[in-house]
Amino acid sequence: MGKDKKLVEAITSMAVDFPQWYTDVVKKAELIDYSSVRGCMIIKPYGYGIWELLQKQLDQRFKDTGHENVYMPMFIPESLLQKEKDHVEGFAPEVAWVTHGGDEKLNERLCVRPTSETLFCEHYANDIESYRDLPKLYNQWCSVVRWEKTTRPFLRSLEFLWQEGHTAHASEEEAQEETLRMLNVYADFCEEVLAIPMIKGQKTESEKFAGAKATYTIESLMHDGKALQSGTSHNFGDGFAKAFGIQFTDKDNKLKYVHQTSWGVSTRLLGAIIMVHGDDNGLVLPPAIAPTQVAIIPIAQHKEGVLDKANEIKALLSQNIRVKLDDSDKSSGWKFSEQEMKGIPVRVELGPKDIEKNQGVIVRRDNREKIFVSLDDIETKVQEVLEAVQKGLLEKAKAHKDENTFVATNMEEFEKIITTTPGFIKAMWCGDEACEETIKEKTKATARCIPFEQEKISDTCICCGKPADQMVYFARAY
Amino acid sequence: MGKDKKLVEAITSMAVDFPQWYTDVVKKAELIDYSSVRGCMIIKPYGYGIWELLQKQLDQRFKDTGHENVYMPMFIPESLLQKEKDHVEGFAPEVAWVTHGGDEKLNERLCVRPTSETLFCEHYANDIESYRDLPKLYNQWCSVVRWEKTTRPFLRSLEFLWQEGHTAHASEEEAQEETLRMLNVYADFCEEVLAIPMIKGQKTESEKFAGAKATYTIESLMHDGKALQSGTSHNFGDGFAKAFGIQFTDKDNKLKYVHQTSWGVSTRLLGAIIMVHGDDNGLVLPPAIAPTQVAIIPIAQHKEGVLDKANEIKALLSQNIRVKLDDSDKSSGWKFSEQEMKGIPVRVELGPKDIEKNQGVIVRRDNREKIFVSLDDIETKVQEVLEAVQKGLLEKAKAHKDENTFVATNMEEFEKIITTTPGFIKAMWCGDEACEETIKEKTKATARCIPFEQEKISDTCICCGKPADQMVYFARAY
Ligand SMILES: [Zn+2]
Ligand SMILES: [Zn+2]
Repeated sequence: MGKDKKLVEAITSMAVDFPQWYTDVVKKAELIDYSSVRGCMIIKPYGYGIWELLQKQLDQRFKDTGHENVYMPMFIPESLLQKEKDHVEGFAPEVAWVTHGGDEKLNERLCVRPTSETLFCEHYANDIESYRDLPKLYNQWCSVVRWEKTTRPFLRSLEFLWQEGHTAHASEEEAQEETLRMLNVYADFCEEVLAIPMIKGQKTESEKFAGAKATYTIESLMHDGKALQSGTSHNFGDGFAKAFGIQFTDKDNKLKYVHQTSWGVSTRLLGAIIMVHGDDNGLVLPPAIAPTQVAIIPIAQHKEGVLDKANEIKALLSQNIRVKLDDSDKSSGWKFSEQEMKGIPVRVELGPKDIEKNQGVIVRRDNREKIFVSLDDIETKVQEVLEAVQKGLLEKAKAHKDENTFVATNMEEFEKIITTTPGFIKAMWCGDEACEETIKEKTKATARCIPFEQEKISDTCICCGKPADQMVYFARAY
Repeated sequence: MGKDKKLVEAITSMAVDFPQWYTDVVKKAELIDYSSVRGCMIIKPYGYGIWELLQKQLDQRFKDTGHENVYMPMFIPESLLQKEKDHVEGFAPEVAWVTHGGDEKLNERLCVRPTSETLFCEHYANDIESYRDLPKLYNQWCSVVRWEKTTRPFLRSLEFLWQEGHTAHASEEEAQEETLRMLNVYADFCEEVLAIPMIKGQKTESEKFAGAKATYTIESLMHDGKALQSGTSHNFGDGFAKAFGIQFTDKDNKLKYVHQTSWGVSTRLLGAIIMVHGDDNGLVLPPAIAPTQVAIIPIAQHKEGVLDKANEIKALLSQNIRVKLDDSDKSSGWKFSEQEMKGIPVRVELGPKDIEKNQGVIVRRDNREKIFVSLDDIETKVQEVLEAVQKGLLEKAKAHKDENTFVATNMEEFEKIITTTPGFIKAMWCGDEACEETIKEKTKATARCIPFEQEKISDTCICCGKPADQMVYFARAY
């Protein structure tokens, strides 16, 4: 029973030590395990099950917007990585280098892809000839490697799973449309499926992707008031096209450079799910990505008829719901704790007395509400409750974000907010990188984005006092 | 129109140059492209679409047999790879070594996984404590790297996509059951989905997996009479468990070693599909894994009503079938060629005269049969034809395998068959590795497997003439 004990033991409370709470949840909900490779995680069945559900639904949205999946090599020759100057400067310091194949030393080092712009560009240069070949709307699901110094499961790891979209277009306008289309696909997906509200906006020059003309981002707010960059979409203009010679013959018979985009989200989103919805009892999963949506837990299961009825209800619910029946010999209390730790959105308790009354008890994971329901209506009611949980989680996350979004008009206010009530701070900025840098040094808060939805907080830059017409979301971030 | 011409140009005939035919199909059906990384392929949307359909259906069979997906790191520390002696000897000569992370030289080299036994073993050693934790039935979809000298798309490449199942069991019997269960899952899948019949059997000692107690295989016969090892399933006994210390407390309270299996199939199966079903007009896909099952090709599409009707039929068929309407401005002849090159199982031709008669023409890709059908019945009829194609391809492949499976009772016969009518050769073998080696040197044919379905061809070994009671399938192989 050594293992049983480990699970029901209380985890660290969020209020006491948020990072430790996070680590506890990640381990005790059996999302990941550590391996002997520094900074690389083992994604266990439960964690991978969430990723599969996320992947399936996001992939459908990519296909619905006309994208096709491909697979590129995992290696990039050093010379290829170096073709775009800003790009190599951004990534070379953090790539893993393959120098030997078997006993043979390679003539040219290969890096393990940190991202695949260069490979897609090389392919597009070969594959695109005329305007008829455009647009190219490719996406790839794969793992990438970035040699990070410090790592945390899902949030920052040496290797992580992601998707990277890479598209090529005939015009600047089309590329910009695609960049924003995919940012919106991400934001809608996060809101509708992950129940996480996002701030959409543009990154400042200093925060944009290595080689991009413009980077757009979705930013979410974690329970501890820190922000998480949750997905990015880049407009490359024709910079990569010029570096790689990706040209096409247009309808007017002229040779032109393509305009490109790329966009990606990763297993980082699992970190967001944990830190937005979780509580002191563990994980809380939105039903849309819960590997198990309903746990049926029989009470006094040794009594005649209990397990039979539980199996009957399971069969009924299984038609449209991902449901598990826990008929193990553990105690009910232990089963409740496990269901809560794993964030299963709904549990159905079924005991001999309930069965006598032809009823079951539905318990919501998010707010612990108990609902007594006739077994005749249980399927409909469970469906309703699942929808209510999905909606409730989003509303709660929205409220948390709104309550923790503040306004600052001078540095004193800014510093007070960031130290006492961390969250998003909306403030005006003159556009000068020096001010951005000063704010970062003083407060450890970074410019998360210049949001699409602008407000006029004041007339002057919060840092230097000069005229300012851009409102920026600042926050300390993961 | 440069690209159009490339496609309709006839490909090399199978009879003239089979390897060149293969390369032509792979390129012109737009399955892959080459990259600047030696031996690594770019899997293009059409090739990847086939892989996705294969993966989805195979994954469902894994889940139906109780398996769960996980993700392990892509790197293996050198010391971990070395823990099982036979295993490291088998793989070390063909792994890619990462020696640097960014500018920093690593203390210990990491290899890019050629297969993940060692990582699963390390995890199981940490994770398994009692009989309650067993069995562990894990699977992983990922890419692996093997530093091959010569490579061919899908058949042998430096990097390829695959799945690897890794399981741990309380007893020897259970592990053996699992090993054979998964071999059967593979064989059934290949027959029912890929329409490829398989010979099931055990590998000889010299052909078994590095570190395995026994390796089982499914072997198929390509159009040119060469065999393709299409999937393997290994019983490891407790060899890895002892090397990695994977022990559990059994019900009798004694500490015991687990028994393990592993099993895998890869993008190699796409090579099998091409070489089993393809013909001189290109690819031929079984409907079950065809990204497009039906191509609607309008004839004289500029004539009034043709495209409207084509779109109407498309909408009707799209409910249950993967269908594309080619309304591009290419000629009908070009469209036919493309549909054939890409192996789309069925095309529906719709011209003004057909529409007048309320009819369409269904053309089967596999045997070019033309079927005139009333548009009122077209959905039912297309479904029927798709089923007939799926069935027809399997029958044809079975017939080809049977017609090209021969019996040899002495080396003279054996050598004659292998040089004049290549295929499977059934022959008796004494079990001595020296005979296996002699046959290989003389004929380039290898022991593909000792089939489960044994026959008594003769009393003596085909090579040495000593008493023999095992029948072996020999063939030249990819
Ligand atoms: Zn300023
Ligand atoms: Zn012999």
